[in-house]
Amino acid sequence: MSDTLHRLAAVLEQRKAAAADSSYVASLHAKGLNKILEKVGEECTETLLAAKDCANRADKSELIYETADLWFHSLVMLSHLGLGPDDILNELERRFDLSGLAEKASRQQ
Amino acid sequence: MSDTLHRLAAVLEQRKAAAADSSYVASLHAKGLNKILEKVGEECTETLLAAKDCANRADKSELIYETADLWFHSLVMLSHLGLGPDDILNELERRFDLSGLAEKASRQQ
Amino acid sequence: MSDTLHRLAAVLEQRKAAAADSSYVASLHAKGLNKILEKVGEECTETLLAAKDCANRADKSELIYETADLWFHSLVMLSHLGLGPDDILNELERRFDLSGLAEKASRQQ
Amino acid sequence: MSDTLHRLAAVLEQRKAAAADSSYVASLHAKGLNKILEKVGEECTETLLAAKDCANRADKSELIYETADLWFHSLVMLSHLGLGPDDILNELERRFDLSGLAEKASRQQ
Repeated sequence: MSDTLHRLAAVLEQRKAAAADSSYVASLHAKGLNKILEKVGEECTETLLAAKDCANRADKSELIYETADLWFHSLVMLSHLGLGPDDILNELERRFDLSGLAEKASRQQ
Repeated sequence: MSDTLHRLAAVLEQRKAAAADSSYVASLHAKGLNKILEKVGEECTETLLAAKDCANRADKSELIYETADLWFHSLVMLSHLGLGPDDILNELERRFDLSGLAEKASRQQ
Repeated sequence: MSDTLHRLAAVLEQRKAAAADSSYVASLHAKGLNKILEKVGEECTETLLAAKDCANRADKSELIYETADLWFHSLVMLSHLGLGPDDILNELERRFDLSGLAEKASRQQ
Repeated sequence: MSDTLHRLAAVLEQRKAAAADSSYVASLHAKGLNKILEKVGEECTETLLAAKDCANRADKSELIYETADLWFHSLVMLSHLGLGPDDILNELERRFDLSGLAEKASRQQ
């Protein structure tokens, strides 16, 4: 429980249990799943636009900011549905033991 | 460099440097930024649909799978633009030291 | 029933009723709502990327192509759920009689 | 110039030329392309969520509302980049003369 995603997840669980007007995260949970998913979609769009804008310049701070927003809201989504970062990290662990060729072969696209 | 995201990032850097036909990740880099961003957008849509479908059932494996795909492709995007998970994790570290009320106040929405 | 969207909608209804292997549209309906929504999301992402790429060049054909794809798949979505272009056009008619100021005032953002 | 999309496009062109604080559309143009594309992406996400929510109920008004928002903002995007509905409608005309099988064969997916 020492790294960033786990500490962030712990903070998110605390705020999920708090009063709706006590924090941004609590207000998202109070508004419900659709509002949380709208934010995930919104941050994804902003990430894509920031990636296009940052592609040819040295300053990538906008892309870092938007990707952090995307990961943050995807963690809120997981928390809302009773999941946490370990569910995703374990799935990634399971996958990337695959060799490059095996990985490629296992994907249809 | 021992946890999942960092080990995955190390694998992604290796594959980025490999021949385009040697792995799925290498082929994405060869196709360029737009193809990578299309995949990020695609996996975000699939995550939203899986969240809606999983909301009222016990089996959340589809949502776990799609969120892993979203994080995976966002790491490929970061790698393509010379960034890595630490850029995002440091930004999240910087933010979640904020108290709930301070966090809320710092956001316009 | 003489303009483009209505003629297209008539074609889409025909293909919706056809065998799944007889056309692209029939195959989308056979695969179901999620597959159709994935295509809408995918074409939206491609529209955004094309808009960024076309913004500073004379040739806007890529943006035209991707926006046509977005409208096309949104019509397939409407057809799948028993709606058609008139449902949307009537809603737009209803709205744009508003003056600029009234329109602005009626929106929260 | 008698049908809905053309009349809407004429209204959008008028508002594009107006002062930024005179209407919602004028304010979008003043904020620039990224803001307009963020709205297109946002309305697409809301359309997908409304489609999921409306799929199994008789009242489809939410989906109609969100799809109208998606088309509306895609028209603002076209207007911002010097295009209009005819560019898209002509592209759709060009395509849907194809027979079902020819259409299918012409698509890679």
